[in-house]
Amino acid sequence: MNKKVTEQQLQEWIEHVKPFTRLGKVPDYIPALAKQDPEHIAVSVFHLDGECVRAGYVDHLFTLQSISKVIALALALMDQGEDYVFSKVGMEPTGDPFHSIAKLETSNPSKPLNPMINAGALAVTNMIEGESPTDKVGKLLSFVHELAGDNTIGIDTEVASSEFETAHLNRALCYYMKQNGIIEGSVEELLDVYTKQCSIAVNIQQLARIGAVFANEGRDLQSGRQIIPKHLARICKTFMVTCGMYDASGSFAIRVGIPAKSGVSGAIMGCVKDVGGIAVVGPSLDEKGNSVVGMQLLEMLSSRLELSIF
Amino acid sequence: MNKKVTEQQLQEWIEHVKPFTRLGKVPDYIPALAKQDPEHIAVSVFHLDGECVRAGYVDHLFTLQSISKVIALALALMDQGEDYVFSKVGMEPTGDPFHSIAKLETSNPSKPLNPMINAGALAVTNMIEGESPTDKVGKLLSFVHELAGDNTIGIDTEVASSEFETAHLNRALCYYMKQNGIIEGSVEELLDVYTKQCSIAVNIQQLARIGAVFANEGRDLQSGRQIIPKHLARICKTFMVTCGMYDASGSFAIRVGIPAKSGVSGAIMGCVKDVGGIAVVGPSLDEKGNSVVGMQLLEMLSSRLELSIF
Amino acid sequence: MNKKVTEQQLQEWIEHVKPFTRLGKVPDYIPALAKQDPEHIAVSVFHLDGECVRAGYVDHLFTLQSISKVIALALALMDQGEDYVFSKVGMEPTGDPFHSIAKLETSNPSKPLNPMINAGALAVTNMIEGESPTDKVGKLLSFVHELAGDNTIGIDTEVASSEFETAHLNRALCYYMKQNGIIEGSVEELLDVYTKQCSIAVNIQQLARIGAVFANEGRDLQSGRQIIPKHLARICKTFMVTCGMYDASGSFAIRVGIPAKSGVSGAIMGCVKDVGGIAVVGPSLDEKGNSVVGMQLLEMLSSRLELSIF
Amino acid sequence: MNKKVTEQQLQEWIEHVKPFTRLGKVPDYIPALAKQDPEHIAVSVFHLDGECVRAGYVDHLFTLQSISKVIALALALMDQGEDYVFSKVGMEPTGDPFHSIAKLETSNPSKPLNPMINAGALAVTNMIEGESPTDKVGKLLSFVHELAGDNTIGIDTEVASSEFETAHLNRALCYYMKQNGIIEGSVEELLDVYTKQCSIAVNIQQLARIGAVFANEGRDLQSGRQIIPKHLARICKTFMVTCGMYDASGSFAIRVGIPAKSGVSGAIMGCVKDVGGIAVVGPSLDEKGNSVVGMQLLEMLSSRLELSIF
Repeated sequence: MNKKVTEQQLQEWIEHVKPFTRLGKVPDYIPALAKQDPEHIAVSVFHLDGECVRAGYVDHLFTLQSISKVIALALALMDQGEDYVFSKVGMEPTGDPFHSIAKLETSNPSKPLNPMINAGALAVTNMIEGESPTDKVGKLLSFVHELAGDNTIGIDTEVASSEFETAHLNRALCYYMKQNGIIEGSVEELLDVYTKQCSIAVNIQQLARIGAVFANEGRDLQSGRQIIPKHLARICKTFMVTCGMYDASGSFAIRVGIPAKSGVSGAIMGCVKDVGGIAVVGPSLDEKGNSVVGMQLLEMLSSRLELSIF
Repeated sequence: MNKKVTEQQLQEWIEHVKPFTRLGKVPDYIPALAKQDPEHIAVSVFHLDGECVRAGYVDHLFTLQSISKVIALALALMDQGEDYVFSKVGMEPTGDPFHSIAKLETSNPSKPLNPMINAGALAVTNMIEGESPTDKVGKLLSFVHELAGDNTIGIDTEVASSEFETAHLNRALCYYMKQNGIIEGSVEELLDVYTKQCSIAVNIQQLARIGAVFANEGRDLQSGRQIIPKHLARICKTFMVTCGMYDASGSFAIRVGIPAKSGVSGAIMGCVKDVGGIAVVGPSLDEKGNSVVGMQLLEMLSSRLELSIF
Repeated sequence: MNKKVTEQQLQEWIEHVKPFTRLGKVPDYIPALAKQDPEHIAVSVFHLDGECVRAGYVDHLFTLQSISKVIALALALMDQGEDYVFSKVGMEPTGDPFHSIAKLETSNPSKPLNPMINAGALAVTNMIEGESPTDKVGKLLSFVHELAGDNTIGIDTEVASSEFETAHLNRALCYYMKQNGIIEGSVEELLDVYTKQCSIAVNIQQLARIGAVFANEGRDLQSGRQIIPKHLARICKTFMVTCGMYDASGSFAIRVGIPAKSGVSGAIMGCVKDVGGIAVVGPSLDEKGNSVVGMQLLEMLSSRLELSIF
Repeated sequence: MNKKVTEQQLQEWIEHVKPFTRLGKVPDYIPALAKQDPEHIAVSVFHLDGECVRAGYVDHLFTLQSISKVIALALALMDQGEDYVFSKVGMEPTGDPFHSIAKLETSNPSKPLNPMINAGALAVTNMIEGESPTDKVGKLLSFVHELAGDNTIGIDTEVASSEFETAHLNRALCYYMKQNGIIEGSVEELLDVYTKQCSIAVNIQQLARIGAVFANEGRDLQSGRQIIPKHLARICKTFMVTCGMYDASGSFAIRVGIPAKSGVSGAIMGCVKDVGGIAVVGPSLDEKGNSVVGMQLLEMLSSRLELSIF
């Protein structure tokens, strides 16, 4: 089957889903995100052969938010090795909301259940090596440049500041983990790195290209160079399936069935073996924190192109 | 790549993993299971072309236990439709042990998080249509006959009785769900059906063939007849990935990466698209309830034949 | 200070609180209780000198419901001794609703936190000695006769049947505890005894007299005979303070400050050292399960007569 | 009955309980507390008539730790009024360990269940009025001077620093509550005040005198001046009974039956209406965090002098 779509198809699908934005809402707990326009919808498919099809607000920039968790995980796995990373963070989905703290108390030993919930992602970012927060952010940004094949990508500092100031739940998670030896060092510095990592700003094509590297088993699309070792890219994709869509990961696996990671900016990055990377964005979120129209667009794409891995 | 193994390879791998049986233990809370021999190891791969490779205690019968949850789910989906089934049971992994009751209390609305934990499986079996428990068990057994292509498969009544008498946790789950309108009718009759469903006794080749039908997208291997509609077979395989190995499903997805379901008899059934069904058995269980050597054999198979879907 | 009230005062207070019945509602989950009239309010103070002041629907019968938990506890302590009773049931308040099951799973060792939540009360009733359910119910009833000084008290069998049939949450609690060795024997027989114990029907004066025996340190008001050993009566009163009003026990202790136990029939029994027993009834319940007007009447009594133990 | 003891009796009881220190252990998670000598036992009864009987290491200073929660509560109630205080903190015992965070997540609305667990105590200290942390600490210290009738009482700054640096769990609790609007302002400043409040250092006689003020319904022992309004002193004593001894409050109420508050320094302050204040200290703690010998001494005192309020 030809697993390609045309720009026109993407455009039609955007028109089709646009009315559903009103079923969700733009999150209001991060001031800088609250002003996003729910109709700023975009979608892109970046094929392994380099072709990129896209439609909607294709030049609009949005922040990675939780999508950055997958990228930081890949980097931490490369820096520290699987054994160390998984001595601090588990591999199991939780069934709880992403910001939940209760399981840290009831799990024995106390460690975050996986790297896709906030607690786990904070522990992973804590493993990024660097002399200073600036160093670590620089390292993360360089890695994003490499994955997207684009050195112009930067940080939305307004979003980063806004998130840093309101990150009290994340502070609570960090101090809880610091008490239990899961994270080390300064919590404020860690949150500085983490909120900047979340605030890396991309357009839809850049995001789709990052997804394509994961789809391509970690190899650069042009040079073929192994940016992420194959088995580590696979680990990342596995987490995208079991825990990538917050506590809607199970139903997403059934309805869509591709490795994907969402963020509260309304973006979702997907990756499909032998096909490429997919990116969608639509700021209106459902109650689990996933983009309403993003989920619908991915369901349509998966269904039309038969993308499910199951 | 040639995704086939030889009987000799399987035999060698069994010898290789045999010493690890002592890392787990045969469960003692069900008297009839407690007397299993931990060295009764067997493995089988049933290819879509009909070829079956197998090694170890190939004639030894063991009970399906939780593997039957996938089969009952397929039947309930066919009988009642997706909408009804998922109005009573969720789609999300839990991160809790399979017999846990706490989330029934804290989830809103109160329903089991997925059909692979005991609560969800009981709710699913409650949906099997039939005039009487005998009818329902007959229906489940006929379905197993169809999947395995073998009408001789029956129930180990000693195991069924033993489980029925000690099923107090399952009774607690049932009454809790009855209170909340998730299940209807007689709890004792439901447990009668459920414990018999768990006590269906198969050999390693029969189990591999059932897995092969799922791998074959629900079609019979010989006739090509669609026993399970393709989209329902896919739903079943998705649950095997996200919740099939109890609260070790996440790490199994990373280490092995194939849809699989385990049971406390020490059996595991896997299914691999374009390849076939895989069955392993080894009664010694780890603390999560999965066969120690079964996990190792599947990891070896997945690694040598590159079976991971990720 | 003269710690006595007049009938006229009680009558005035009833008129005062009557309008507040509409702030709560008569519980609808037990059909036989659902038809109670929310304005069937009564109150009684039974003094240690034998004088009984009362007002409102003084001849109206209502069921003990959870108030029976204190009586069964006294009997079990007398039958089995403190050590045995507290090997199966804890002494700590929970902060959870009375029918909660989650802490049974998370507590280690698994035992009900106290005898006033349903789980603990079921475990206590399971300790009442007797050849048969009829025997045990007879024993409980005789004990109530002794406490109330009235052999005419019986069981409201309509309420008992209604509760027995709908007691699925209690069945869940029982089977969970049976699994963990907290209770033994037939769950259905236990629930038969328990629902009959809850359905013992009294009028307001009888209930106040039972409270007076606890206030009198376990001694009969007329004969002075020690019906309950003093130290066991004290244990019962302690539980009334720390856990007697469901998960509103803490605020009740602050607002009222006397040992008291409520039931979902809208009755509350209190006991005040050197004063006597107090009973109130008003079927309209707040969201915690306590009588709205009962709480108000007790607060007025405690405040006017300075009854708080704190 | 003569509710007085002699110094000789107290001395004998100390000898009697001393061997039991080895059943517990000195807490090691706060470095400055870890070096306490488990045999530094002292006990004191401060009668309402001004007489003070005491024995053991009577000149030894120890820190208030959680006992300060009662004092801060009294001050906050006086500063802010009941309504405000209880809009932020509940009145119910929890059954959970004092440092637990899980119920903050599961309770609705999210507020600490009572002012005796760490979360609630932090919220209470956050209500103390003052321009700066120094102001607030000064206010707390003046209040302690007033209660103890002794202006020499100060802060053990070594303990305060040690606790401040290791207070990560408390930081987690604070940030969680800040997110939910329970506390306001700087978390670090709040922890500065809180750890100093916990580090107020007293001897056994001073502590007993503080208890005596509560026993005396808030009035100064000498002048009779109302330091704490009577109804607020009563609220404090009620919390001591329902939640004063961490998650052993229920069993303490049964075994001892007096309002009391313990701290991880091994001190316990009790107060008995019409009798006076009691203080015990013994640094070896049981697994709930209460002084092993302190509990035993109070049980002996309560039993010999018949002090139970039940």
